Amino acid sequence: MPLNKNQHIAIAGAGLVGSLMSIYLAKHGYKVSVFERRPDMRTNLLDRGRSINLALSNRGIRALAEVGLADKLKKVAIPMHGRTMHDRKGQLRFQPYGKEGQFINSVSRSNLNIVLMNEAESLGVKFYFEQRITSVDFEKTELTIRSTNSEIQRLKFDAIIGADGAFSAVRGSMQLTDRFDYAQSYIAHGYKELHIPADAKGNFKLEKNSLHIWPRESFMLIALPNPDGSFTCTLFFPFEGNPSFNSLKIEREVEVFLKETFADAYELMPDAVQDFISVPPSSLVTVKCYPWVRNNTLIIGDAAHAIVPFFGQGMNAGFEDCRILNQLLDQEKNWETVFNEFQLQRKANTDAIADLALDNFIEMRDLVADEEFLLRKKIEAMLHERYPDKWIPLYSMVTFYENIGYAEAHLIGKKQKQIMDDVMQTPDLKQTWEKLNFAAIVSKLNGYA
Amino acid sequence: MPLNKNQHIAIAGAGLVGSLMSIYLAKHGYKVSVFERRPDMRTNLLDRGRSINLALSNRGIRALAEVGLADKLKKVAIPMHGRTMHDRKGQLRFQPYGKEGQFINSVSRSNLNIVLMNEAESLGVKFYFEQRITSVDFEKTELTIRSTNSEIQRLKFDAIIGADGAFSAVRGSMQLTDRFDYAQSYIAHGYKELHIPADAKGNFKLEKNSLHIWPRESFMLIALPNPDGSFTCTLFFPFEGNPSFNSLKIEREVEVFLKETFADAYELMPDAVQDFISVPPSSLVTVKCYPWVRNNTLIIGDAAHAIVPFFGQGMNAGFEDCRILNQLLDQEKNWETVFNEFQLQRKANTDAIADLALDNFIEMRDLVADEEFLLRKKIEAMLHERYPDKWIPLYSMVTFYENIGYAEAHLIGKKQKQIMDDVMQTPDLKQTWEKLNFAAIVSKLNGYA
Repeated sequence: MPLNKNQHIAIAGAGLVGSLMSIYLAKHGYKVSVFERRPDMRTNLLDRGRSINLALSNRGIRALAEVGLADKLKKVAIPMHGRTMHDRKGQLRFQPYGKEGQFINSVSRSNLNIVLMNEAESLGVKFYFEQRITSVDFEKTELTIRSTNSEIQRLKFDAIIGADGAFSAVRGSMQLTDRFDYAQSYIAHGYKELHIPADAKGNFKLEKNSLHIWPRESFMLIALPNPDGSFTCTLFFPFEGNPSFNSLKIEREVEVFLKETFADAYELMPDAVQDFISVPPSSLVTVKCYPWVRNNTLIIGDAAHAIVPFFGQGMNAGFEDCRILNQLLDQEKNWETVFNEFQLQRKANTDAIADLALDNFIEMRDLVADEEFLLRKKIEAMLHERYPDKWIPLYSMVTFYENIGYAEAHLIGKKQKQIMDDVMQTPDLKQTWEKLNFAAIVSKLNGYA
Repeated sequence: MPLNKNQHIAIAGAGLVGSLMSIYLAKHGYKVSVFERRPDMRTNLLDRGRSINLALSNRGIRALAEVGLADKLKKVAIPMHGRTMHDRKGQLRFQPYGKEGQFINSVSRSNLNIVLMNEAESLGVKFYFEQRITSVDFEKTELTIRSTNSEIQRLKFDAIIGADGAFSAVRGSMQLTDRFDYAQSYIAHGYKELHIPADAKGNFKLEKNSLHIWPRESFMLIALPNPDGSFTCTLFFPFEGNPSFNSLKIEREVEVFLKETFADAYELMPDAVQDFISVPPSSLVTVKCYPWVRNNTLIIGDAAHAIVPFFGQGMNAGFEDCRILNQLLDQEKNWETVFNEFQLQRKANTDAIADLALDNFIEMRDLVADEEFLLRKKIEAMLHERYPDKWIPLYSMVTFYENIGYAEAHLIGKKQKQIMDDVMQTPDLKQTWEKLNFAAIVSKLNGYA
């Protein structure tokens, strides 16, 4: 079917990715309707209080910039220049994320979502809330939707984009079609959110411009700053075993555990025990599937590739989806080509970030407390400083170099790891690392970067 | 919940595995109800005509023997002692499956199923047909069932066993629960069934006691004998590319292709072109998931571990599930332990046969036409002959040695492959293989078998 500005596009999901995609499409001139299962978060305040924050980085910012929203959002974002690690004794150590001027941004999920929805509406996008998609007819490009009063509607569109998240209903309908590869896999850890409020004057109780980590080998606590002076903390913790969510159920035991394990943080979280006890842990899933297209329906974002949060790239990957899809709408002449090119370009990249995100959990919870690992990072930073275009550390490629695809970053990262594994065998490296032959190390990456 | 003979067990699916499991449970004294989505195949003749045959081997026979049905079924089974390979010129080559007296059995799926259902009913099992399970309430051990007249019933049981196949509704409900790992993946090939009728006197037109293969590297045709003198052939063929199901749609082209590619078989299949044209290809899926248990509900057979058919083990693995589950019902005292022990014992084994079945497609369609591969098989057969307990070829372990679990067979098979890869490097092996130091080769398998 040829692209035509009079066409009516349905988007499933008014989350971050669905809302941004609706803006791109409206700017193209399409008629856009967005269907969301939940109530409007702008009028329904329930979810807004402590809603989690996210790390916005270059890939996400690039897409926001294209729709003219980057500057507006940077104003409410809090730059985080690196990780501050807290050991058991409360001693701190800072590790920058990149070079001077490279940082990630703590943003509130709900604030960002509201900015995107408001912008979309100002461009003519129509949002319909409390509308549950019960099935998709791919032959007819038709949604069956049940609203809260149980009314059932069937609505036909020219194209449908499923941006309805990790438990996507659009993908659910794809799964009923033949030859749809699908995998969902959970990690052994879940998470609970805890909270460090601002002090009496509304100031941050920890260094504001950092992502704080309490790495404890098999689990960790992290904290990201909020504009009101508070931090939202997330405890990533095993479901089973000892200690685990399952082993810690009694108030007194939770208190002892938190106090002993995260002493300095515990002092700052007056409601920690209550927060821990009162809410069940959430689980963490990776979803991979293929194809992402059935006729004139496409899935994007978490619906197509949900990942664990440990590389801070879930939203950024979803926003990058929107940018690439928009690019193809500029270049191509019909929907089949746009959708097919999209999945061909994105599948390997989103598989790569899924795997990188799983790997990074081990780095965050365990390795960042390891001397040798920190030395390795220092050497890589030096390589990058001396050869800025020839050796870009993996974290930087993923986070700050949006022109390097995730798949390419993954590949180069593996090669770098092999090279650095050898380098780390050098005797007395801790004393002598500054005298390494950096040119020789970089030359081994031959053919890359 | 303790095991108690007065309990009422529901089985989802009256296929091979559901029917056999119902017999085991009835023999234990439980009240058993089986719910099947399709009509009763004993009164509904539609599916019976050319329904496919299956290869029954030791694991399946062992389970049938335990419920006293092995002898009855052996009488209608056709022994297949090996593979007969047909090359493009119609030249034949025979490769035995195992030693003298080791063979697999071609059985009709529908006949076997009917024998099992009849036996189950004679033991008091109740079958309910045209009953679609729409959801399972795991907390209440309750099935929601819609019958063909759209009547909806909710029925409570003491335990539920989902044996409802690769597209299991019971598993579908499990997938909606938290932390359920699930993967379905399709191969690039599909299949169509063709038919070699008996000759005018009702005799087989090809050697009866063989599985026939027309290996053609990237695809293959196979044929299994039926009691009426006919063969059911299956063409495993790519969906896309050239040649593929997608590239061959015109009658005349199909005719040319079949005639050129399977010359000797084509002469024996009067309806081949019509059969090829009139039916769309079926797809081939592998399903892996975990856990298999939610409260008092368990999934078994294809519902828990659907595999591709290339090792002839789908039904055999399902029957082995029934045997192991029955064993645990004898040993344990409550359902939780039975179900949990079952999944712990079976998961690694069914993962292994899933992988082995994928590997065996390459062996069947390509390697069996390869001289070096056939020499390798001959050497392994000699090793087995001289050291019958110390070197058992992988195919034999899987097919004829039901006391070796699939996972163990897979592991030993990998070790054997490494050893044989080295052996195959021996110069002039074709001339000298009988003079190999077989004792030395076997000793490398140290610690296995």
